Amino acid sequence: MRLAELSERSGVAIATIKYYLREGLLPPGHRVSATTADYDEGHLRRLRLVRAMIQVGEMPVAQVRKVLGHVDDESLGRTIRLGAALWALPREPEPADGQGEDEATAAARDEVDRLLRTLGWSTAWELGAFSPVHRSLVAAVATLIRLGYPWDAELMAPYAQLMHQVAVRDLDFVETHHSEAEKVETAVAATILFQPVLKALHRLAQEEESARRYGLS
Amino acid sequence: MRLAELSERSGVAIATIKYYLREGLLPPGHRVSATTADYDEGHLRRLRLVRAMIQVGEMPVAQVRKVLGHVDDESLGRTIRLGAALWALPREPEPADGQGEDEATAAARDEVDRLLRTLGWSTAWELGAFSPVHRSLVAAVATLIRLGYPWDAELMAPYAQLMHQVAVRDLDFVETHHSEAEKVETAVAATILFQPVLKALHRLAQEEESARRYGLS
Repeated sequence: MRLAELSERSGVAIATIKYYLREGLLPPGHRVSATTADYDEGHLRRLRLVRAMIQVGEMPVAQVRKVLGHVDDESLGRTIRLGAALWALPREPEPADGQGEDEATAAARDEVDRLLRTLGWSTAWELGAFSPVHRSLVAAVATLIRLGYPWDAELMAPYAQLMHQVAVRDLDFVETHHSEAEKVETAVAATILFQPVLKALHRLAQEEESARRYGLS
Repeated sequence: MRLAELSERSGVAIATIKYYLREGLLPPGHRVSATTADYDEGHLRRLRLVRAMIQVGEMPVAQVRKVLGHVDDESLGRTIRLGAALWALPREPEPADGQGEDEATAAARDEVDRLLRTLGWSTAWELGAFSPVHRSLVAAVATLIRLGYPWDAELMAPYAQLMHQVAVRDLDFVETHHSEAEKVETAVAATILFQPVLKALHRLAQEEESARRYGLS
């Protein structure tokens, strides 16, 4: 398809597409003449992904480029490629107390370790602090502890198991896609776009359950 | 306990506690002399909640006051009191395109309606657009549609059911608390503090599942 059609099908303005091309967020089209290039479904898919990262993820161009670098790195195994792409996405900020490891963080690390062993999540346990997602979890638990809220591994394990069931569905969905590139792109898009859906479903389920237990009056 | 002990047990500086007292975020202590007041476990609990909203939720004082107004409103039934308090918390912003209801939003509303009917979530369906959480879900789905990602009610229903299981655990936990005020306070604190934990558990579960399926290399 030509640039005009790519613009129409994606809903992204031609000038914006040209900007993405210049910034290297979108690979060049297939040259058909000195002034015309042709774009395929891969371009459309990539354009949607870039749009999701910039519009919904509110990510700066440099960070988008970094994520795409991992998405396109065929030298990596699938877990690492997926992990690298997802790890480069924005995360909950770690507490900016600048004091390095405090008491609450150390306690949180122990609690998360215990939880992962209980669950038998051996990779998550082995990767440990190498994984930014692991660090986010420790930071979130440290905040609970610091504010005096109780942390209870027995209470948490069933939550973790439910989130594992969610993750199994995520990966099943990713696997419905054919090419390796599509799989990784889908995982990145789903992580950005799907998180708000899941969060809203959670809050809506709380409302529904509350109404069932206590009524509406 | 005296102010000094309240400060020590909560980890909140005396000057900050005095500020919260002046701003009405913390009820006054029980006067024991012209210059001394006494604080109880309820003050400590409320102080932790205020801290969670301001530090973790990054909420302005006026919004904290509004949430606490709902928490303390004993004239409301539990679902409404809970709902009002949680609805006043910050949410994912609705898309600021300022064009009012566009095509994608209308389509998203239909899809969410269909999903809720499939699930049998009758309260969520009846409350519909009255609930800010419902509006957040419609907005998140509209974003998916606008960016050209498929929305599939069959794909979503099991996710919603898993989030319902999460919500059942949430309310079970809230019910372990004794007084009505504690129940509502716990629900608010959990919504703010627990969301990052759940999100990190989800991402960590994806890593774990990915490593199980594809290995680490």
